[in-house]
Amino acid sequence: MKKVGVIMGSDSDLPLVQKAIDQLRSLDIPFEAHIFSAHRTPEEARSFALGARENGFGVIIAAAGMAAHLAGALAANTTLPVIGIPCSGGMQGGLDALLSTVQMPSGVPVATVAVDGAANAALLAAQMLAIEDAALAERLAQKKQADAEKVRHKDAALRV
Amino acid sequence: MKKVGVIMGSDSDLPLVQKAIDQLRSLDIPFEAHIFSAHRTPEEARSFALGARENGFGVIIAAAGMAAHLAGALAANTTLPVIGIPCSGGMQGGLDALLSTVQMPSGVPVATVAVDGAANAALLAAQMLAIEDAALAERLAQKKQADAEKVRHKDAALRV
Amino acid sequence: MKKVGVIMGSDSDLPLVQKAIDQLRSLDIPFEAHIFSAHRTPEEARSFALGARENGFGVIIAAAGMAAHLAGALAANTTLPVIGIPCSGGMQGGLDALLSTVQMPSGVPVATVAVDGAANAALLAAQMLAIEDAALAERLAQKKQADAEKVRHKDAALRV
Amino acid sequence: MKKVGVIMGSDSDLPLVQKAIDQLRSLDIPFEAHIFSAHRTPEEARSFALGARENGFGVIIAAAGMAAHLAGALAANTTLPVIGIPCSGGMQGGLDALLSTVQMPSGVPVATVAVDGAANAALLAAQMLAIEDAALAERLAQKKQADAEKVRHKDAALRV
Amino acid sequence: MKKVGVIMGSDSDLPLVQKAIDQLRSLDIPFEAHIFSAHRTPEEARSFALGARENGFGVIIAAAGMAAHLAGALAANTTLPVIGIPCSGGMQGGLDALLSTVQMPSGVPVATVAVDGAANAALLAAQMLAIEDAALAERLAQKKQADAEKVRHKDAALRV
Amino acid sequence: MKKVGVIMGSDSDLPLVQKAIDQLRSLDIPFEAHIFSAHRTPEEARSFALGARENGFGVIIAAAGMAAHLAGALAANTTLPVIGIPCSGGMQGGLDALLSTVQMPSGVPVATVAVDGAANAALLAAQMLAIEDAALAERLAQKKQADAEKVRHKDAALRV
Amino acid sequence: MKKVGVIMGSDSDLPLVQKAIDQLRSLDIPFEAHIFSAHRTPEEARSFALGARENGFGVIIAAAGMAAHLAGALAANTTLPVIGIPCSGGMQGGLDALLSTVQMPSGVPVATVAVDGAANAALLAAQMLAIEDAALAERLAQKKQADAEKVRHKDAALRV
Amino acid sequence: MKKVGVIMGSDSDLPLVQKAIDQLRSLDIPFEAHIFSAHRTPEEARSFALGARENGFGVIIAAAGMAAHLAGALAANTTLPVIGIPCSGGMQGGLDALLSTVQMPSGVPVATVAVDGAANAALLAAQMLAIEDAALAERLAQKKQADAEKVRHKDAALRV
Repeated sequence: MKKVGVIMGSDSDLPLVQKAIDQLRSLDIPFEAHIFSAHRTPEEARSFALGARENGFGVIIAAAGMAAHLAGALAANTTLPVIGIPCSGGMQGGLDALLSTVQMPSGVPVATVAVDGAANAALLAAQMLAIEDAALAERLAQKKQADAEKVRHKDAALRV
Repeated sequence: MKKVGVIMGSDSDLPLVQKAIDQLRSLDIPFEAHIFSAHRTPEEARSFALGARENGFGVIIAAAGMAAHLAGALAANTTLPVIGIPCSGGMQGGLDALLSTVQMPSGVPVATVAVDGAANAALLAAQMLAIEDAALAERLAQKKQADAEKVRHKDAALRV
Repeated sequence: MKKVGVIMGSDSDLPLVQKAIDQLRSLDIPFEAHIFSAHRTPEEARSFALGARENGFGVIIAAAGMAAHLAGALAANTTLPVIGIPCSGGMQGGLDALLSTVQMPSGVPVATVAVDGAANAALLAAQMLAIEDAALAERLAQKKQADAEKVRHKDAALRV
Repeated sequence: MKKVGVIMGSDSDLPLVQKAIDQLRSLDIPFEAHIFSAHRTPEEARSFALGARENGFGVIIAAAGMAAHLAGALAANTTLPVIGIPCSGGMQGGLDALLSTVQMPSGVPVATVAVDGAANAALLAAQMLAIEDAALAERLAQKKQADAEKVRHKDAALRV
Repeated sequence: MKKVGVIMGSDSDLPLVQKAIDQLRSLDIPFEAHIFSAHRTPEEARSFALGARENGFGVIIAAAGMAAHLAGALAANTTLPVIGIPCSGGMQGGLDALLSTVQMPSGVPVATVAVDGAANAALLAAQMLAIEDAALAERLAQKKQADAEKVRHKDAALRV
Repeated sequence: MKKVGVIMGSDSDLPLVQKAIDQLRSLDIPFEAHIFSAHRTPEEARSFALGARENGFGVIIAAAGMAAHLAGALAANTTLPVIGIPCSGGMQGGLDALLSTVQMPSGVPVATVAVDGAANAALLAAQMLAIEDAALAERLAQKKQADAEKVRHKDAALRV
Repeated sequence: MKKVGVIMGSDSDLPLVQKAIDQLRSLDIPFEAHIFSAHRTPEEARSFALGARENGFGVIIAAAGMAAHLAGALAANTTLPVIGIPCSGGMQGGLDALLSTVQMPSGVPVATVAVDGAANAALLAAQMLAIEDAALAERLAQKKQADAEKVRHKDAALRV
Repeated sequence: MKKVGVIMGSDSDLPLVQKAIDQLRSLDIPFEAHIFSAHRTPEEARSFALGARENGFGVIIAAAGMAAHLAGALAANTTLPVIGIPCSGGMQGGLDALLSTVQMPSGVPVATVAVDGAANAALLAAQMLAIEDAALAERLAQKKQADAEKVRHKDAALRV
């Protein structure tokens, strides 16, 4: 299976990004995590993106806050799908990171998930990899059923 | 190749969605377009999503405005990746559609592109399909180079 | 009297929803509470809404946060009035939930109350049921007078 | 059947409010329309609300823009359900009117619909009146089916 | 000297409003404080405003949060200047209260100060009363100089 | 009677400010209009404010857009009440001008009216001057009644 | 004198950027204009920034809209001051471009001017170059006086 | 070397401004810090700005919150570049201060950094002074490399 690149702009994003990594692990998806800053180590970010497909990556996840350019900077240098996680911590509950991530110009999309939506970023990466991978698709379907079952149990147990 | 489902919430979204369709055609990606409303024909939306993988779809694109539930309603019923296009026309330049599309709860991601970002939605779908399709990946790389070349020509021609 | 359906998208919404339940109880209005997720158990939400009128419900209250589709998903499947409580906890103090709940397209209204306005949702449901129920209308009038009396007492007691 | 009071804050709101009136007429719901300003004719607004139940009204719809106090001012003086239509025309696409209408304090709810959502306000009023009126409920169900049918036809006719 | 009416929508606003009262006291300005709710005791609010000029008031200050209608409801019933203090506590740091207070329609102005700007509301009332009161104007000028002097001392003492 | 100073930041604000001037004229209130820019002619703005009380002014109105510092810059140099009109034309329907005008620090209030609320600024100035001027108060009361009468006529004439 | 690099993300920004160029010309400041896209020609943008100081540039101006990464991408690769012009055209009057430009992480500042503030970007560049250039400082002082004089003339000519 | 003026609107801004001062010190840049309030000590602010160039300043940094006029008030009285730090603490995470600082009218630019971006303000000032100062430029380049090195070490040490 292709690997998922999990890139964060700063080590302060690690607690959030860990949720993406946990989700990938629980779905048996190989990944490689890095700290690349779009503004402090732009060269590393660029090299990673340029070589990502060749190096066995299928999807890239990028988490960043404030003027969150990381996902876009990676997307500029690859044709792999790039998933952006806007991190809160800046202004207005992450509106700065959300708009900086999602409002990409034509030609260079970033697949944006909710502010701080790290687990969903991993699930989205899994869904992409599962397009041609029936076994992974089956694991995703099982997780979906398990999630539903949990809600059903809570509903059944509801006492108000 | 897997098909892309291109779903719009209303026929008024067609001029915007046409840009996604044109982009898919120019990349030789098969697609099927539908008008399903999350609120007026929820049954049709649900049936489509439930059967999408089995019916040969690999990715679903959903365009909707205002309280844009369409992408989320489809994502609730499939494990295929769902791309959401928030359409402007409601409040604050599409902020209502953007937040309604992107702020999905854990377990059900929607890959959100820019407000009215129809062409990018198609490109993102193509990037997903190209993870395991070297020929499509090559077409995407060529388009990326052509886009860059256009900018270079404009720079070279710049007279101010 | 018709029952009020009190639906929440997650058990984490229960502390807030409890205020609606307390208000319904204090007005002697029958209700039934459920946890249905628009995205994780869409089938249960749909079935409930489709059968609600037949099953003795007169009004449905739905509480959800972030991309709050629950009220809209219920309204899509019933002609009963649906009251939406946008829950804070997502972005910008609940702006995401507010816009996702209130900005419904023509044909499928959701009666939206304030962010986290659970008690008011119950009162609004009571007002709807009281249109044809003079005894309930009288209880609402008494509550209104009691609320006013409390403010009057506080004004009279004001020492600054 | 109880009447619907359709109140607008200014005659400039009439083109928008007309959509509510047309919807009420198409559902054979009796109504009475007035121009009352919460700030210029507060006495008239207050008198109307105080006597509304006695005068045969079942629901009140109020349309206003900017610091839209009209719905709240009516709700302060009645226990009938009050539906608020926030009108755009002020700031940020109607955000001022939306927040002024929906963010009501505990004890005095306003059932808020989308910005400029006049037709939905009428539908919501109809849904309230239909709680105890099977014939009206049937007309609402037929409208719902007709709306769905229109979307289905458009989907069937889609050529892209 | 004319009195200042200091009206708050709820006793929960008292800690904030106390700052206005302290400021009025330090300037020797007579005042009378009340708790009137635009939505729970609209009659009291209306009566107060209608009789305010006759009862010796020169300015009215009104503090309220969320859909803050109090200042507007008072202004609707008097030609005295009404100062609105938007209270935070609702959405987006008080944006709901700010827009509900300031965006008044033509004919009924509310003199709005900053969110939670209680001390400034009192100063503004004093400025209004000082238009024709040289002694009060002198006290305001002295306070202005004292404020400036404090900043000058802090600048002189700055060690960084 | 004291004069009203009507200050605009640019001659492009004149069409808007004219509404304030027309309102002042219709109430027989003396005024003097100037173009002073807080950033281009700060000296003129400062001199005007410093001498305003001595020169017979009772109230100052200031209209400006974008980073609207004019009202605050005048208020910094006088103890007369300063009314701010935030002008739209910048960002988000005038949100920049509104926040720049209303969010003044403690000690230096600006009485802010609605975005583009020029007529209300004049009315507010008149209300301030009428605190000690019974004849002007009577003219304001007559205008208020005339405004109400207009709404009543429109209500009576309503045909829908 | 050092040159100013005037970079735009797209040729569609040229009409706006022309105002910066006109301002630079009127101050006799040498410049060089380019179209570099942070996402379509990232290599060109990077090379330009890396060599800018060596190639005789003193300041870089960058204009871009939507998820405006251009200024930040240049700043990542140079220690020259970079001025960002957020261009409107995206969401909420340019809020997306403003936040994407200004909310830079620690270590990589971008000197941001108003949305569409192209002339001010040029003036700011001139102010930077004038720190050590008395002749240019004199030209800036003359322009400042001329701007003030224009306002004074308009004030003197004001007839209302 | 020219000095940097570091101006804050209130001593409550000192903890934030200290980060700018620390950054200036670490780069061996001379500075002078002051507390000047645009609204409480406008005279001091004005005098400082008018004499700044003559007194050996090359750049001015101004930090202020809420209706943050300080940077603009300084810029109105000098042709030196003025850097504005919008301070949070007011509304919406500092949106009021950001818009009040950045949305300056044509002719009077303020170089705005991120909300609370004090360290970046100092770096930007250093970049301006380094245009003609090769030694300072070298120190900036070394800091840039050190920043990158830190990120590289964190990436190398990443264990997830």
